[in-house]
Amino acid sequence: QTFESDERALLKVDNGISFSKDSLFLMNLRFRMQNRAGLNTFGGDDFGVEAYEMRVRRMRLRFDGFVGTKKLQYYIQLGFSKADMDLENSGIAQPLRDAIVYYFLTPNFYLGFGQSKLPGNRQRVTSSGNLQFADRSLANGFFNIDRDFGFFAYKTFIFKNQSLFQAKGVISTGDGRNASKTNNGLAYTGRLEYLPFGAFKNVGDYSEGDLEFEPKPRLSIGISYSANLKATRTGGQLGPALFDQRNIYTLIVDGMFKYQGWAVLGEFFSRDATDPITYGPENQIRYVTVGNGINIQLSRMLSPKSELAFRYSVVQPREDIISLQDRTEESIVGYSYYIRKHRIKIQGNAGYKWLEGLPSFENTGNSFTGMFQVEFGI
Amino acid sequence: QTFESDERALLKVDNGISFSKDSLFLMNLRFRMQNRAGLNTFGGDDFGVEAYEMRVRRMRLRFDGFVGTKKLQYYIQLGFSKADMDLENSGIAQPLRDAIVYYFLTPNFYLGFGQSKLPGNRQRVTSSGNLQFADRSLANGFFNIDRDFGFFAYKTFIFKNQSLFQAKGVISTGDGRNASKTNNGLAYTGRLEYLPFGAFKNVGDYSEGDLEFEPKPRLSIGISYSANLKATRTGGQLGPALFDQRNIYTLIVDGMFKYQGWAVLGEFFSRDATDPITYGPENQIRYVTVGNGINIQLSRMLSPKSELAFRYSVVQPREDIISLQDRTEESIVGYSYYIRKHRIKIQGNAGYKWLEGLPSFENTGNSFTGMFQVEFGI
Amino acid sequence: QTFESDERALLKVDNGISFSKDSLFLMNLRFRMQNRAGLNTFGGDDFGVEAYEMRVRRMRLRFDGFVGTKKLQYYIQLGFSKADMDLENSGIAQPLRDAIVYYFLTPNFYLGFGQSKLPGNRQRVTSSGNLQFADRSLANGFFNIDRDFGFFAYKTFIFKNQSLFQAKGVISTGDGRNASKTNNGLAYTGRLEYLPFGAFKNVGDYSEGDLEFEPKPRLSIGISYSANLKATRTGGQLGPALFDQRNIYTLIVDGMFKYQGWAVLGEFFSRDATDPITYGPENQIRYVTVGNGINIQLSRMLSPKSELAFRYSVVQPREDIISLQDRTEESIVGYSYYIRKHRIKIQGNAGYKWLEGLPSFENTGNSFTGMFQVEFGI
Repeated sequence: QTFESDERALLKVDNGISFSKDSLFLMNLRFRMQNRAGLNTFGGDDFGVEAYEMRVRRMRLRFDGFVGTKKLQYYIQLGFSKADMDLENSGIAQPLRDAIVYYFLTPNFYLGFGQSKLPGNRQRVTSSGNLQFADRSLANGFFNIDRDFGFFAYKTFIFKNQSLFQAKGVISTGDGRNASKTNNGLAYTGRLEYLPFGAFKNVGDYSEGDLEFEPKPRLSIGISYSANLKATRTGGQLGPALFDQRNIYTLIVDGMFKYQGWAVLGEFFSRDATDPITYGPENQIRYVTVGNGINIQLSRMLSPKSELAFRYSVVQPREDIISLQDRTEESIVGYSYYIRKHRIKIQGNAGYKWLEGLPSFENTGNSFTGMFQVEFGI
Repeated sequence: QTFESDERALLKVDNGISFSKDSLFLMNLRFRMQNRAGLNTFGGDDFGVEAYEMRVRRMRLRFDGFVGTKKLQYYIQLGFSKADMDLENSGIAQPLRDAIVYYFLTPNFYLGFGQSKLPGNRQRVTSSGNLQFADRSLANGFFNIDRDFGFFAYKTFIFKNQSLFQAKGVISTGDGRNASKTNNGLAYTGRLEYLPFGAFKNVGDYSEGDLEFEPKPRLSIGISYSANLKATRTGGQLGPALFDQRNIYTLIVDGMFKYQGWAVLGEFFSRDATDPITYGPENQIRYVTVGNGINIQLSRMLSPKSELAFRYSVVQPREDIISLQDRTEESIVGYSYYIRKHRIKIQGNAGYKWLEGLPSFENTGNSFTGMFQVEFGI
Repeated sequence: QTFESDERALLKVDNGISFSKDSLFLMNLRFRMQNRAGLNTFGGDDFGVEAYEMRVRRMRLRFDGFVGTKKLQYYIQLGFSKADMDLENSGIAQPLRDAIVYYFLTPNFYLGFGQSKLPGNRQRVTSSGNLQFADRSLANGFFNIDRDFGFFAYKTFIFKNQSLFQAKGVISTGDGRNASKTNNGLAYTGRLEYLPFGAFKNVGDYSEGDLEFEPKPRLSIGISYSANLKATRTGGQLGPALFDQRNIYTLIVDGMFKYQGWAVLGEFFSRDATDPITYGPENQIRYVTVGNGINIQLSRMLSPKSELAFRYSVVQPREDIISLQDRTEESIVGYSYYIRKHRIKIQGNAGYKWLEGLPSFENTGNSFTGMFQVEFGI
């Protein structure tokens, strides 16, 4: 089993903690936590504090690297906070987030087998450690396609003018992470990305905010389509169990633009299902969240380490479920101070959420939110 | 607390990642995952796909080594997949698999205290990372005695002709891993093993398939007996809660033979309990799985890295529970491609399962199964 | 992201496993487990064994260190045994114990943000790896204020005569570890400590037993006060949900004295709440555990590695809940053999517990307990 090499194994701590031996072995060990203290107002014109959200939102351990050859890579991520394990909403603890093996046919064409994020909307695929707000958007919450288990294929085409084209395809269970036996309706997800002006610095197309101060404009446009057949949960890979199976179709178009400290992220969602409402034995209702959503974020680096960002997000449920689900909008302004880029940062958010398109304060259900968050990782 | 030694601590990556200092300290860090995609047919003569099993079946972290002296060893294993934590059948997450401290009186005689596998049938004691099929056998599922917490004693006798004799004894709770307070009926397990032709290469008596191509014949014969007094679960250390306590007695005889790429594994089980059926307050039934079982595996290495294997397993419930539990049989053929021996391998299995001794396809309940599995570990 | 330094990263195994680079990076990795086998008698004058407690009581992983500068420190602890995850009493797995970031304004003044132990009674704040008995006291079980999430501030004053004064303050959720959204009643905890004769060796004021054989007398006196407003659990940060919110006030006075192998630990508790009993919809009762408690421990090192210790603890519920909760007392004698100080040790405890102030054996509810425990950690 021994790797034949005269070199001693090498320890480095620059990028997490890495254990390596030539091109024969690598394991990076990383952790990160997100500690936060936030508040929500009662809503309407009562601006008193209704509830605090003070908790460890995320606590992750990560192992990645290769064994024997750089062609054979692995990625494992575990999460231990209550929310990481999906224990806010369900009773089944799920520490396992990612566990996937990759085989690189070429440096630009690789296959994966295991559990990982589906190539859905850009913000969901961006690590929670690379966000510029404390949470992902309202629209992401409703329409993202999260993680799944299956077969993944990723191919990148590099053109002479440095522009890039990427194609991603996945066949997966459609039931989300850590599903047990699944029915015979699988999920099929495809995504195309085009980067006309070439690659972002430090994979900046999947990291929010232009911390790299791109000297030239960078743009990435993506489009994803997912068909989740015989889905059993309200959001396909996410949400409580439906009372009946439904086919769920999700279309996503998104883009990221960065230039000299400015960054713009835009995401459009559209989810479709025939007959989205299902009924339980006592006429309880669970429905597929069909409709449209938008998330737009604009940010500017104020200094090499500080950033101001603005987000607007809206969820517009489709006509046939509008009596069950209000149109919801949110606006948030965020300030981030990046001590060690995204690894160690302090963030402050202030937001306002309103229902039915009625932003005035006195409307019941409308509320303010504030959040202070510290991210710490290696 | 400092270990007095001039040597610097040493990092190696040949066998997992190991941190060591002379003979004063060792910790090996390992992980492994098993990702799989399988299917079951509807059964009877409907050969359509009823369900897929696509998931991370196992995701384990392991720490082992010694502290201060090689006489004082430890072994810790954590599991994070849904099945690892027993969340397929129960609601209580159990990431802790092994946590045991060993004291070596001599290199061939050691005592253990903690949670670990009982010395039951050979396939159960063999790590799930050293199997030649994706899953253990049908008979193992019914009759194995799994893990438990208690006092362990292991002694090996080496004779002049190189033959080995091993004696293993355990006093344990009888309630399986991570039990809370337990009643005053404990479990007593003993096992004897005889290796007439000497030790297998690389502990091959507890690793399936003859990956070492034993140049001379190797054989191990084992016999285990377990008396689980006042047991509270259907399988003693495993299964749902019985409605009453029962004494459960399990006899196991097994053997492993290897020679020049051929390997034969045989296991015979017999489980006994007086009055095995217990009744709940509303006459619900839970019963001890009494009866007999057999597992036979035959394999041959086709090349230094590839193997063909065949398994037949049968479970014959005892007369008094036969109305509750059908006789069940399975045949499986498996192909394994060992990239880095058992650590990184690709496996394909195809099997057929039939009930009541009636193998013909049109019988309801009979079904085909197929499985593709990738194991990846360090 | 790279740390600019010519030095290679350094591996050490003296104090757990540590990965470091100059004063730029440190991570200590540690684990420890506590395996135990104990028994309880039936109680009254039946001295037969009612139940065994044989299990892995604690299994912890710990990561701590600093990143970039020693001013920015972190501390993470995960627990994986059933009891560690609070699964003995609740259904929600909680592996996350500590996750906190510290900022050191000066070496003697630091701020923390995250989840950690509140500065409550000395024995609770002492790591379970540094106890001289297998479990903390009866009084601790009733009245400790455990862990919480919030903002922590710690300041130490060092006087010319070497005496120390410490002030600790915390604003936290009041709902204990891994709470989700919390109501607008927070918890406020303060603690003052005075060490008139200077610091203990090796932080011995928070480690039980005088393993260091203090050559000169050492004393620490502490007083804590906690106001948990709108508390929702019977013990504030601990226990099942109350049917109504209550304000809970806890006063703690404690002290540790050590000299030449002798150690004395004393703790006094007083818990207050107006109208401590709450009623559920069907008149079920859940009450705040108001009343007083005492824990006294006296120990003497018999040799450099062995120790004899004695504990007496009492819980006296307040008049208004005395019909729901008996006065309870316990006496325990403990022997510890410290192989590698508190890291690797073997402990034996024998104790007697009695109710209503009636210590005679024939009293129903009184019972004996015995415990054998092995702690193993790095």
